[in-house]
Amino acid sequence: MSALRGNALIGQSGGPTCVINQSLVGLVEAAQGEEAIDRVFGALHGIQGVLDDNLIDLGRESSETLERVANTPCAALRSVRKKPTRTDCEKVLARLREHDVRYFFYIGGNDSAETAHLLNEIAVAESFDVRLFHVPKTIDNDLRVTDHCPGYGSAAKFVAQAFMGDNQDNRSLPGIKIDIVMGRHAGWLTAASRLARVREDDGPHLIYVPERTFCMESFLGDVERVFTKHGRCLIAASEGVHDADGAPLITSKELDSHGNVQLSGSGALGDFLAGQIKEKLGGKLRVRADTFGYLQRSFAGVTSEVDAREAREVGRTAVRIATADEVPHGSIVIERHGNGAEYSASFGATELSNVAKVTRDLDPGFILGDNDIDESFLSYAAPLTDSLPEIGRLSDFPI
Amino acid sequence: MSALRGNALIGQSGGPTCVINQSLVGLVEAAQGEEAIDRVFGALHGIQGVLDDNLIDLGRESSETLERVANTPCAALRSVRKKPTRTDCEKVLARLREHDVRYFFYIGGNDSAETAHLLNEIAVAESFDVRLFHVPKTIDNDLRVTDHCPGYGSAAKFVAQAFMGDNQDNRSLPGIKIDIVMGRHAGWLTAASRLARVREDDGPHLIYVPERTFCMESFLGDVERVFTKHGRCLIAASEGVHDADGAPLITSKELDSHGNVQLSGSGALGDFLAGQIKEKLGGKLRVRADTFGYLQRSFAGVTSEVDAREAREVGRTAVRIATADEVPHGSIVIERHGNGAEYSASFGATELSNVAKVTRDLDPGFILGDNDIDESFLSYAAPLTDSLPEIGRLSDFPI
Repeated sequence: MSALRGNALIGQSGGPTCVINQSLVGLVEAAQGEEAIDRVFGALHGIQGVLDDNLIDLGRESSETLERVANTPCAALRSVRKKPTRTDCEKVLARLREHDVRYFFYIGGNDSAETAHLLNEIAVAESFDVRLFHVPKTIDNDLRVTDHCPGYGSAAKFVAQAFMGDNQDNRSLPGIKIDIVMGRHAGWLTAASRLARVREDDGPHLIYVPERTFCMESFLGDVERVFTKHGRCLIAASEGVHDADGAPLITSKELDSHGNVQLSGSGALGDFLAGQIKEKLGGKLRVRADTFGYLQRSFAGVTSEVDAREAREVGRTAVRIATADEVPHGSIVIERHGNGAEYSASFGATELSNVAKVTRDLDPGFILGDNDIDESFLSYAAPLTDSLPEIGRLSDFPI
Repeated sequence: MSALRGNALIGQSGGPTCVINQSLVGLVEAAQGEEAIDRVFGALHGIQGVLDDNLIDLGRESSETLERVANTPCAALRSVRKKPTRTDCEKVLARLREHDVRYFFYIGGNDSAETAHLLNEIAVAESFDVRLFHVPKTIDNDLRVTDHCPGYGSAAKFVAQAFMGDNQDNRSLPGIKIDIVMGRHAGWLTAASRLARVREDDGPHLIYVPERTFCMESFLGDVERVFTKHGRCLIAASEGVHDADGAPLITSKELDSHGNVQLSGSGALGDFLAGQIKEKLGGKLRVRADTFGYLQRSFAGVTSEVDAREAREVGRTAVRIATADEVPHGSIVIERHGNGAEYSASFGATELSNVAKVTRDLDPGFILGDNDIDESFLSYAAPLTDSLPEIGRLSDFPI
């Protein structure tokens, strides 16, 4: 059976990562090498660009430009947060037909997998023969099936390096410091702060993930206990921490098109927690809060090489599987073989419906009590961030 | 005239930087090589450690430990924010006599220079023969006389890389984004965001420094103008922006021992500005704010090599000048020779009173109107950050 012949179209969707363009370039390179694929187009701002016929010719980009783009954070094709209606999907498919697109690759998170899934269902109903593939990316690391998600390793590296530095800062000028980490439903990125704890008294001393109910009383008790022990306290809290009813501690009224409440792009949660500590534990305490914000997904120049390489390979794999003509659609997955120095990965695909909609929580085995991350997490995460800076410390020899 | 013979004591003070330990290690290495200096002590938490007799023996640290410490952000000797009284200073000098300390090196900003200056005046009055040197560090770059301050280059690199990434983020998912940068009185660090603007339409599109009065009406007009032109707007604002009376836009009641109002460690200013934009320009606008916070002074793994090298040399220079027995006290300064590829630096000293107390604003020539930084700033700052990531962009060829 020979592969379907036609053009390929690539789109990027959702929040950016530092390696999302590695996948884009992996797709372009591999597509250009496939006989079944004639031209390679890009949609500006994801499916919105398909609807608006805002397409570009990726086949004309030089390899130098592509290589520079691969190493540049955030969606080079620009992104979109859009949940398409059935009518939108029908229009998208009509546009694909118009441009003889037989391969559509959508780089994104679970919402993008859901979009690809919807498109696929309608294409099947319309008997339109097209290959629809989801190429995973998310700093949240919350996609099902895959061992981990491209984009997570680099964001985890950023969070780890931020905590390594902030732990030194907190040790220099002791006080209570709260750092808010991205992650609405899943604590994977917040857990990465654990990589910064090398010595027994290093922070983060407390780590709160959205997989556990956040109780203000316990939190204040934890902070007091750590502060009494170490004379300082460094806290990692996910932006998605919530009470027993699932309600966030503070809310804004803004919703995105997927109905998600705005959590990032504001320092409100950190400031609220700092205020609670001052109010309940003492107004004289030196309490500060930082919200890492968009730097976690966009900071230029802090990239995990493993993550970059895998993101590229995930793009290449999508083209390979799509043109192999064995499955008409799918989401690319990474399989892990071994941990630590033994770590290696292989690449495959799963059904779109296995990845769409529902996200994946931080493994319960990694969560220790209500406010820490187990050491076993380190062998999961360390291979993904690649090397971290080495932190020196004086021996404090008495005179 | 032969150099004064005795022990050396080193302290670190004020907010940390990523290269403050390079200066510490430069001091230790150079002191160990000087015949006039017997032992090298460290004070934990600056002059507080001297008052508490909380000293350590730096001479016993291995060169491996020292090298690791040099490459670790934030004060390895731990820091303090303390403005000593006259009585404190007398106690400090008594402690120096007790430990036969004839060389005291204080690594810090203008407050630390003021402390050294006070100590020197009292030592002279007491006829206590001691060498008192201030070793500069500050991410604010606001010390007088010196061309630039150790610590600034690395913080500027962090800010530039953050804006390079956030500009891509803002281009991926357009909206209005405010980033708050450290700098209470001086806009040097906020100006470093200008390094991220490579292409004409790159952000930051607007840059607000504390050297200019912040007018809310003009600000909202600027934002509207940029948003109309580019369909997005990336803003760099110093945490120290203030109205015509010098009052900050928002205030907390917390003061440090130097009487400074708390500005950092809170997302309040960014959230306030975001709220004003929504209120006045439209509630439907996508407006986000990030406050870079302590990451700017502590992030592990983003260090300018030029800055690290110079910080080391500033420490060595302090020992060299102190033991040369030509001047009894001083603050180390960096002199610049040439810009761009021609950049080089030499090291010397100035009187403590030339550096103490009063800080140095961003040069007026670098400020363009009320909301931008002149291109000429780039040749000043670029040699200090060393290389920055290269940002690629697709050509957007039509199909």
